[in-house]
Amino acid sequence: MNVNGRHFRTIWRQPGNEGVVEIIDQRALPHEFLIEKISHVAEMATAILEMHVRGAGLIGAAAGYGMALAAKEFSGSRNFRQRIIEAGDLLKSTRPTAVNLAWAVNRQLVAMEKESRVPEKVARAFQTAAEIADEDAAACRLIGKHGLKLIRAISRRKGGKVVNILTHCNAGWLAFVDYGTATAPIYAAHDAGVAVHVWVDETRPRSQGAKLTAWELGKHGVDHTLIADNTGGHLMQHGMVDLVLVGTDRTTRTGDVANKIGTYLKALAARDNRVPFYVGLPSSSFDWEMRDGLREIPIEERGSEEVKYVEGWIDAEGEGKGRSVEVLVAPEGCRAANYGFDVTPARLVTGLITERGRCRASEQGILKLFPERSVG
Amino acid sequence: MNVNGRHFRTIWRQPGNEGVVEIIDQRALPHEFLIEKISHVAEMATAILEMHVRGAGLIGAAAGYGMALAAKEFSGSRNFRQRIIEAGDLLKSTRPTAVNLAWAVNRQLVAMEKESRVPEKVARAFQTAAEIADEDAAACRLIGKHGLKLIRAISRRKGGKVVNILTHCNAGWLAFVDYGTATAPIYAAHDAGVAVHVWVDETRPRSQGAKLTAWELGKHGVDHTLIADNTGGHLMQHGMVDLVLVGTDRTTRTGDVANKIGTYLKALAARDNRVPFYVGLPSSSFDWEMRDGLREIPIEERGSEEVKYVEGWIDAEGEGKGRSVEVLVAPEGCRAANYGFDVTPARLVTGLITERGRCRASEQGILKLFPERSVG
Repeated sequence: MNVNGRHFRTIWRQPGNEGVVEIIDQRALPHEFLIEKISHVAEMATAILEMHVRGAGLIGAAAGYGMALAAKEFSGSRNFRQRIIEAGDLLKSTRPTAVNLAWAVNRQLVAMEKESRVPEKVARAFQTAAEIADEDAAACRLIGKHGLKLIRAISRRKGGKVVNILTHCNAGWLAFVDYGTATAPIYAAHDAGVAVHVWVDETRPRSQGAKLTAWELGKHGVDHTLIADNTGGHLMQHGMVDLVLVGTDRTTRTGDVANKIGTYLKALAARDNRVPFYVGLPSSSFDWEMRDGLREIPIEERGSEEVKYVEGWIDAEGEGKGRSVEVLVAPEGCRAANYGFDVTPARLVTGLITERGRCRASEQGILKLFPERSVG
Repeated sequence: MNVNGRHFRTIWRQPGNEGVVEIIDQRALPHEFLIEKISHVAEMATAILEMHVRGAGLIGAAAGYGMALAAKEFSGSRNFRQRIIEAGDLLKSTRPTAVNLAWAVNRQLVAMEKESRVPEKVARAFQTAAEIADEDAAACRLIGKHGLKLIRAISRRKGGKVVNILTHCNAGWLAFVDYGTATAPIYAAHDAGVAVHVWVDETRPRSQGAKLTAWELGKHGVDHTLIADNTGGHLMQHGMVDLVLVGTDRTTRTGDVANKIGTYLKALAARDNRVPFYVGLPSSSFDWEMRDGLREIPIEERGSEEVKYVEGWIDAEGEGKGRSVEVLVAPEGCRAANYGFDVTPARLVTGLITERGRCRASEQGILKLFPERSVG
């Protein structure tokens, strides 16, 4: 989407120097917009590990380009194949729970096997990396197209008045190659001239809403207001939310939705106030093996420092101005728990928006769109 | 309650120097425990205005002592009565929405009128200030006593296993003179040897849970874990919460509960998971005129800086270590909304715990305890 009037993806080959891949270093957002050049697979592994790039779709694309860089880097090696497999293992080790990571690496390994000579393997790897990125962007664009219909319908019902959409965490273009999932319908509506306004949950403890979603919406020119995570229920009670739209890390074949911690609380408030609650997702986020999200989806526990410390930017005059620091907001020695995700049961989800269209959050509804996933 | 093994209230007369009142400067918590001496009514007004002291009960007690200090200070003045009225107006102007403030000032004005000579007026004012503080502590102690029965019953049902209690914001002893409201049953249980553990919501945007509740529970030795506000729903889904216990800023005669923003979301999760949701309150927090909390209770909107900035303590080695700073966690220029409270409808409240006992959150239930409030 746009940054300062210019279109960006989250990852691309450097124009005129195709052996270099460029990414947005998301750690510096929202205070600095830094572009990082990556020439070696080891640098890409570090970028994924240290979260210069994050988000399901983007991690997959980064791994794809990481493998292409590895192919180029090791093209003179007598152990090319061995080095490539090692590079894949290195990339896979950075974020072991990110399913897109292993998937992209394996796709590259298979693609390169189709060529017999190393120069063709290298070319094929860059071509495959571009395909992975383009497919991710295309799926998100379609989620936007299908979700736009929903927003248009609400807009029509409101006589063209602003449609207020609440979102949680960052399921925006920064988490994918472009468009995002939860944000794709919002960008599509904005670009189509439908008046929208987004309530952005700050999303403690990592503040992805405040740091990433607010930034990307602002840069693309979408009207939005940042709120504490505690606020959404009050807004819904007072008719100030027309639609809740979130992403997901994993959704079961029965429609249970794992997403950033706190999503479930917003789904409860949406039901209590008859506000539609939708989830945008590419079909790669379905877990076709799982039927009971609450029992089966493992919930990552992260470090307690993320709760006890807040990272932010000193902008006041004086010592330290213009840098990021971590500040302690709890008593020293205080214990803190940090569950990364929660599961919203399908009964609270109004519908899913995928690249194939909208469906109900039920096995029957999902299989209507994905009949090839029916069993027996 | 206890701090480093010694019992403290939030406000008291300096031993051996009864013209001086001491308070805990709560702005420095949890990183520094500072006691401030106050000798003049103007200093007390500043302490209330700038939130060295905060919380309904404590603000009332501070105003009571402020009036006593004024009486002493102006005892030589020829316009004693005029100066006292002005002092009352000064105190009332500091936090105009705090009902306990005006109530305490007016009680002092009436009390002093009962004496004819100034020295007796001064003595009477100090005596009244002590009464206001003692009554607040006594009401909270009774809330603790009545709430303890509830916690004991849960403990018994669990065969003596730890009772997990979730609380939001700070309705602790720091907000009153002692004991607190939501915390009073917790302290009573702890002191009686009933095993309890408290999930402390950090309570964005002002972080009263992280800064105050976690501190006071820790200092008294009550087992607790800090969590992001997003976490409670997940914990309740997994049977990790036995009881939700919160305070209130105002509760209608029908049992609708206004409390810190985000309380409503926890009440929804409690109902969805059959977790009892209780509110501790002194009877002074009832608004006997109101019947519909959602429509009638005005919700304060505060400055957007509280959402965009986080205040915390630099504890890392290097520049700035050992001081508090405010850091920006959102894009510069980002709009933010900051609703201070929300209303939990009575239908989601399992019961109220007052100084007179427990009751259902309904007009009928409340009037059984407070029959003098029946009308017609």
